[in-house]
Amino acid sequence: MESQGKNDISAFFDPKAVAVFGSLKDTGGPGYGTIKNMLDLGFGGKLYPISPSQGEVLGLLAYPTLDEVPGPVDLAMVIIPPAAVPGIVDQCAQKGVKAVVIGSEGFAEASEDGAVLQQQIVDIARRSGLRIIGPNTIGVLNSSNGLATVPYPISCNKFLKGGIAYCGHSGLISAHSHPIGPHAYPLSKLCDFGNKCDVNEVDLLNYLSDDPETKVIVMHLEDVRDGRNFVATARKAVATKPVLIFKPGRSEAGARAATSHTGSLAGDDKVYDAAFKQAGILRLSNWLEFWEVPRVFASQPSPQGNRIAIIGLSGGGGVVAADAAVDAGLAIATFTDATIRKLTKLSPRLASNPVDFGPPATVAEDPLAFSEEAISLVLADEAVDCAAIVMHSGLGGAMARIIEMLCRMNESTPKPITVWLDGPLPSATEDLYCQLASRGVATYLDLETSIKALGIAVAYSRIKSGFAQQMT
Amino acid sequence: MESQGKNDISAFFDPKAVAVFGSLKDTGGPGYGTIKNMLDLGFGGKLYPISPSQGEVLGLLAYPTLDEVPGPVDLAMVIIPPAAVPGIVDQCAQKGVKAVVIGSEGFAEASEDGAVLQQQIVDIARRSGLRIIGPNTIGVLNSSNGLATVPYPISCNKFLKGGIAYCGHSGLISAHSHPIGPHAYPLSKLCDFGNKCDVNEVDLLNYLSDDPETKVIVMHLEDVRDGRNFVATARKAVATKPVLIFKPGRSEAGARAATSHTGSLAGDDKVYDAAFKQAGILRLSNWLEFWEVPRVFASQPSPQGNRIAIIGLSGGGGVVAADAAVDAGLAIATFTDATIRKLTKLSPRLASNPVDFGPPATVAEDPLAFSEEAISLVLADEAVDCAAIVMHSGLGGAMARIIEMLCRMNESTPKPITVWLDGPLPSATEDLYCQLASRGVATYLDLETSIKALGIAVAYSRIKSGFAQQMT
Repeated sequence: MESQGKNDISAFFDPKAVAVFGSLKDTGGPGYGTIKNMLDLGFGGKLYPISPSQGEVLGLLAYPTLDEVPGPVDLAMVIIPPAAVPGIVDQCAQKGVKAVVIGSEGFAEASEDGAVLQQQIVDIARRSGLRIIGPNTIGVLNSSNGLATVPYPISCNKFLKGGIAYCGHSGLISAHSHPIGPHAYPLSKLCDFGNKCDVNEVDLLNYLSDDPETKVIVMHLEDVRDGRNFVATARKAVATKPVLIFKPGRSEAGARAATSHTGSLAGDDKVYDAAFKQAGILRLSNWLEFWEVPRVFASQPSPQGNRIAIIGLSGGGGVVAADAAVDAGLAIATFTDATIRKLTKLSPRLASNPVDFGPPATVAEDPLAFSEEAISLVLADEAVDCAAIVMHSGLGGAMARIIEMLCRMNESTPKPITVWLDGPLPSATEDLYCQLASRGVATYLDLETSIKALGIAVAYSRIKSGFAQQMT
Repeated sequence: MESQGKNDISAFFDPKAVAVFGSLKDTGGPGYGTIKNMLDLGFGGKLYPISPSQGEVLGLLAYPTLDEVPGPVDLAMVIIPPAAVPGIVDQCAQKGVKAVVIGSEGFAEASEDGAVLQQQIVDIARRSGLRIIGPNTIGVLNSSNGLATVPYPISCNKFLKGGIAYCGHSGLISAHSHPIGPHAYPLSKLCDFGNKCDVNEVDLLNYLSDDPETKVIVMHLEDVRDGRNFVATARKAVATKPVLIFKPGRSEAGARAATSHTGSLAGDDKVYDAAFKQAGILRLSNWLEFWEVPRVFASQPSPQGNRIAIIGLSGGGGVVAADAAVDAGLAIATFTDATIRKLTKLSPRLASNPVDFGPPATVAEDPLAFSEEAISLVLADEAVDCAAIVMHSGLGGAMARIIEMLCRMNESTPKPITVWLDGPLPSATEDLYCQLASRGVATYLDLETSIKALGIAVAYSRIKSGFAQQMT
């Protein structure tokens, strides 16, 4: 199933009017949930609850049928029993709806009967030109206009507008299940593919590569349906922004699980690896990287090379970080003589990379001022392209000063940096993490992932300049 | 440097009287910090602050010199400028102190002068028979008697008594830097090796393998000094309890960093791999695994085989978990016909492993009761040896019921299980995590690590039964 035109899925993200099909009968009804979310997020377009039995919900007039909605409708969100879905999609086609998100489950992923139903809605889409996301999906989210089709409560999870677009095959990739807001993943768009009966990863790649609000495209893919088209589209996207993919179903058991999850045919993992490489896609290794690595692109400048400085208050942490750096394709920077002289003057223990400023900072008159001086010297070295800072939430309890110091470093250097945090009290560490992340410091709670993020940033810079050379 | 006898380091963990050398002059002084920690933890032995200038601290009489302490002293904690350390160690030897923890830095890890000083204290130890941990260490902790030599505040971090012994080369492995208490790592002993001028990993392996309070020995090692002795001692330990090792310095850059951190000679990683394998040691891959994997041994029964059931409320999470299971050497269990019949009766969607009960539970009258029935059926299957449960802190907000349900499952099954949690609000997820962990449910915030823990548990069961066969 090929995409039918480059930007024809924009109605999913920028609809002027949205109809919602789904139970309004109580606060747990999916129709109610979706409408509540959009009202809470301040969706600016028109919102039409459709309900044959209920006249009003959350102050909005409900319409008995789509037909009776007075104006045009661009997007419909549908969560009703599967047998009734084809009829509703048909009504959408007749009304001129451009985009339908089908949240209901019980289609190709569930049974042969479900597959028949799914084919019926695909046929309607093909005939009418309307596009479908799903079925078996929580749909889309657009941080810039408050659009959200997810029926579960997300409003407690105040996300940041920003440059990361997440797409995936799982309801776990949503503000109702992951701390998107508190952990400061700066979001542009979000899309759950579901069963991909129509709209798929190629459509999203196309759309997101042209989306000015998206700086990095991140996908969780259980399969790719149209490999050739996918590689060509991804290559084009990669020329302008990074495309990061987490592809589970690597193992035979995982692939079987993917089939029963979304009807995906995961295929041979080596084929995916080769295709991703050809397209310039960077592959993420696990669930943690899927969430944490993209942040480095949302807030940090591009690295000019692969030479990393590791600096912080733990020698042991530095050793672990050095291993992770090598694993991630980074080189441990050799400081210039001038930097070594300046560091040595500060303390003879600081002259080698990784730099462990823990012992001398502990006995310094002002440990934080000492730390800042050491970090500044390292960041200023022309032989350093990026830096990983190993920090601690407990350093003297001077949390406000730690935040200001790291924000100053982050704002004043043209080099990408990441910060790893540990600490004895999860609440204090979490608080420091949230404050730093919300101010654009690429902060991590996992040590190796803080390094991997820089490795992926370097890898993308290389891919991009390689592509640019091929084009000249 | 070989161990001088099997249990001769017990004075480090079970001293009747402790002397503390280190500044008492304010609350940031290391002597003050150590004494404050032991008082807060309720250390039951005698505590002697040594200070030529101060008569009293925290209600304890301070003695001008060790000589003047009226009774015997078993353990001394020393954090004073390095040049003064040999003199103090000499006094300890004369007083008949059996064990000295040297917290001071500035020895072999720092300079050649420091190496000379270090040799002086080693010579005293060799001559007198006293044993030394360090220098460059925060020393030891014993959860059963409130002994703690760490000078930084740890009392806010109320740890659980339990079966995990952590040893390492880093101050990060301590209640002052990691959420040991809140995240419920049930601790028996803790030891920071520091520079290992005398006591080393072989002594600790020996001691901990005989320690009835330790169920699992976990070490972070930057090097091993006496390989042959280490392998023989570890093999003996492994016959009774698991030995898990995280060995950074794998890469050349990491190895160099280890040398400047603790003077370690990290050596060829392949040699370590082979030695660990020979000893039956299980190797952990990263910092997260170092902290999180051991918990499965502290709270869960031994698996009888490697067949895992993956069950939870996310199909996407199930696919990721299946890959992780294969990576960890587990086999995805094939349910018996009887179980498949029962699961199918509950819902036709539940009949394959991984089991995704998300969709049917969502529409069930009581989602939690439905979930519990599904999990119980799976756990009861004779073709299942262990289970990973994919949960969510947000399920209907019924947190208290989730906790009771998971604790019931955990207590009633003879099979090891782990639980992975995600959720939109870190504070709620954290709260659920802490409550479950403190009640002995092996709970994880990282999906793949929750599976790896079961893989390591299975690997240890196999190693142990292999060793037992060799002995018969």
